[in-house]
Amino acid sequence: MKVLVINCGSSSLKYQVIDSDTEAVLAKGLCERIGIDGRLVYQKAGLDKEITEAAMPTHKEAIQMVLDALQNEKTGVIKSLKEIDAVGHRVVHGGEKFACSAKVDDEMIKALEECSGLAPLHNPANLIGIRVCQELMPGVPMVGCFDTAFHQTMPKKAYLYPIPIEYYEKYGIRKYGFHGTSHSFVSKETAKFLGMDLNHSKIIVCHLGNGASVSAVVNGKCVDTSMGLTPLAGLCMGTRSGDVDPSVVEFLGKKLNLDASGVLQILNKKSGVYGLSRGLSSDFRDLASAAADGNQDAKVALEVFAYRVVTTIGAYIAAMNGVDAIAFTAGIGENDKEIRKEIMSNFTYMGIQIDDEKNAVRGENVKISTDDSKVAVCVIPTNEELAICRDTVAILKG
Amino acid sequence: MKVLVINCGSSSLKYQVIDSDTEAVLAKGLCERIGIDGRLVYQKAGLDKEITEAAMPTHKEAIQMVLDALQNEKTGVIKSLKEIDAVGHRVVHGGEKFACSAKVDDEMIKALEECSGLAPLHNPANLIGIRVCQELMPGVPMVGCFDTAFHQTMPKKAYLYPIPIEYYEKYGIRKYGFHGTSHSFVSKETAKFLGMDLNHSKIIVCHLGNGASVSAVVNGKCVDTSMGLTPLAGLCMGTRSGDVDPSVVEFLGKKLNLDASGVLQILNKKSGVYGLSRGLSSDFRDLASAAADGNQDAKVALEVFAYRVVTTIGAYIAAMNGVDAIAFTAGIGENDKEIRKEIMSNFTYMGIQIDDEKNAVRGENVKISTDDSKVAVCVIPTNEELAICRDTVAILKG
Repeated sequence: MKVLVINCGSSSLKYQVIDSDTEAVLAKGLCERIGIDGRLVYQKAGLDKEITEAAMPTHKEAIQMVLDALQNEKTGVIKSLKEIDAVGHRVVHGGEKFACSAKVDDEMIKALEECSGLAPLHNPANLIGIRVCQELMPGVPMVGCFDTAFHQTMPKKAYLYPIPIEYYEKYGIRKYGFHGTSHSFVSKETAKFLGMDLNHSKIIVCHLGNGASVSAVVNGKCVDTSMGLTPLAGLCMGTRSGDVDPSVVEFLGKKLNLDASGVLQILNKKSGVYGLSRGLSSDFRDLASAAADGNQDAKVALEVFAYRVVTTIGAYIAAMNGVDAIAFTAGIGENDKEIRKEIMSNFTYMGIQIDDEKNAVRGENVKISTDDSKVAVCVIPTNEELAICRDTVAILKG
Repeated sequence: MKVLVINCGSSSLKYQVIDSDTEAVLAKGLCERIGIDGRLVYQKAGLDKEITEAAMPTHKEAIQMVLDALQNEKTGVIKSLKEIDAVGHRVVHGGEKFACSAKVDDEMIKALEECSGLAPLHNPANLIGIRVCQELMPGVPMVGCFDTAFHQTMPKKAYLYPIPIEYYEKYGIRKYGFHGTSHSFVSKETAKFLGMDLNHSKIIVCHLGNGASVSAVVNGKCVDTSMGLTPLAGLCMGTRSGDVDPSVVEFLGKKLNLDASGVLQILNKKSGVYGLSRGLSSDFRDLASAAADGNQDAKVALEVFAYRVVTTIGAYIAAMNGVDAIAFTAGIGENDKEIRKEIMSNFTYMGIQIDDEKNAVRGENVKISTDDSKVAVCVIPTNEELAICRDTVAILKG
């Protein structure tokens, strides 16, 4: 099957066409500045990127341009839209309705509208992508894959906040978790790569990118994760604070004469390693280089980042009463061997030993712990588009 | 030395007179409803409580009544105020100025006034207690003992929030931690009781009362603790939520049409096990009894409470790269063997085994782990008044 994978944001859109039999990416790219001016990036496998500046007043024009590029005589990958067997859509928030990917139908669309209040920046854009694809590709089956779905197996003790229970019941205030497609993909890949039985395994996945979260996965099912009601919670991230004493919202608001929304803007956009490094950068390569040059703020920012990963891994080892494997993934998790090493240096009490040579390997699944390490530690590149493609095929084949 | 220990709140005041040589409590009690109507409770060691209803328009009348009761011909414990050698005052917030207890002088009073903004409900009351004692017992040396002091040894990676660093520098927004007098006392007692060398030890103290916090103590120095800028952060407590996604403050505020202060009131007063149990109770005995009768809310509330202690202990084991001893203290920590057992059942990966018979002992220092447990677990009753007395004597003797 040829599957078009769509990740639709409010003013941008990423896409890939994947052959589900070979799992090869046939073409990929993105649309940027939708509704502003417009820019299409298209790349057929094996060829260079093509960049086209073109008006994209709405997502409809953007997706139409993607479909045209895919059918282009010279660099296209399909002859007609009939070759697209299915579309897989990334959807940020599935609320409590979706514990796994599901076929797009009227009922799903209604459910997504209902949980848009939980992800007001993301779900409406995801819905636009679904509707435009339905319009432009009538009859093509579509599947929604939710960032939250994998985490729906968490027990109450992990997902309930200690607030009046009626706010959970009435307003859905609880821990949902995000990056679920990645945590699901990487935990499964980890078991496969290490030759473990997923159904008898305790795995911790550290998805460390500009957004970052850790999850605890027992027998293939998520039992806890660090993001919360929103993707702000948990770890220190590029520009997000992660957990802070909730009193900070009131205290800082009074100091700056801001309401809660104003403070939350700061916690989402100006905090994390960016805020700790005095606005130097949210990019870990910049921070590592500044720290090497003696910049103390950058050094502390990286220490805070690593420390929060350490304590979260420790928390989840306790939550699972042990751990068999720890996997690192996403931008920082896959590429920053120094941070991996620093984080893992706190776990010699678990008998974890890192092999420096293996830890330096990049771009592939690799076990970075020594052979006599009591817990396997590995780097497993994530692939959310492939995960969405796989889920789409699985759902449609029933 | 005879030391008067004073813990002064906004409308109440607790006191003890302790003989620092024998560490015997000579008399203790409290004043309640100061500024409302007034009630003095006084108890000489070995005798029954005496309760006197009497007008206490201000803290001055309250403390005068305490001093009169201490000198009472029949049930007093001193003949004149000259026998009071020192006064030790509990102070909630010492900011970054006080990393240990310190002699009360003009400079300290000024410093306390400066950090009153960090504890607006507590520090002003503590200051009133100090001033009234100075007035009524001129010339008697006094010492301030801070709830935050013990935690001042935390490294930056533990105490800095990932927010713009200038908010730490300008407004002092960071993790301070509380219950420090208890964490200090219990960590020292734990090492002594277990015959460990405090200077080569990794100890976790679980202070579990209506307010609850966990601390990680390496070689006698605190390296992390679960409370934060305020005593709201961290664990699930009697009525406090502990950590929640900071977005909850904005999200819930919009739903309830409340500003941040309104939401923080709910997180402080209506949350925790009280909120999760649908307002049933913040008392763990009530919840345990309701849960035994099949009340699901109460059961879940207790599970959430225990789970957060589990993940926090796990986090601190990782922070310290191992642990030698875990101590339980305060109301729940000292008296609830079921919760201790449930919490510790998640740590068999650390080789921890609990001895049910020892776990049932109450009211004394007791090691509740088996002899072959890889980590010692114990119950160590806390005694903040004695800790303040000891600190007071130590500071005055230099």
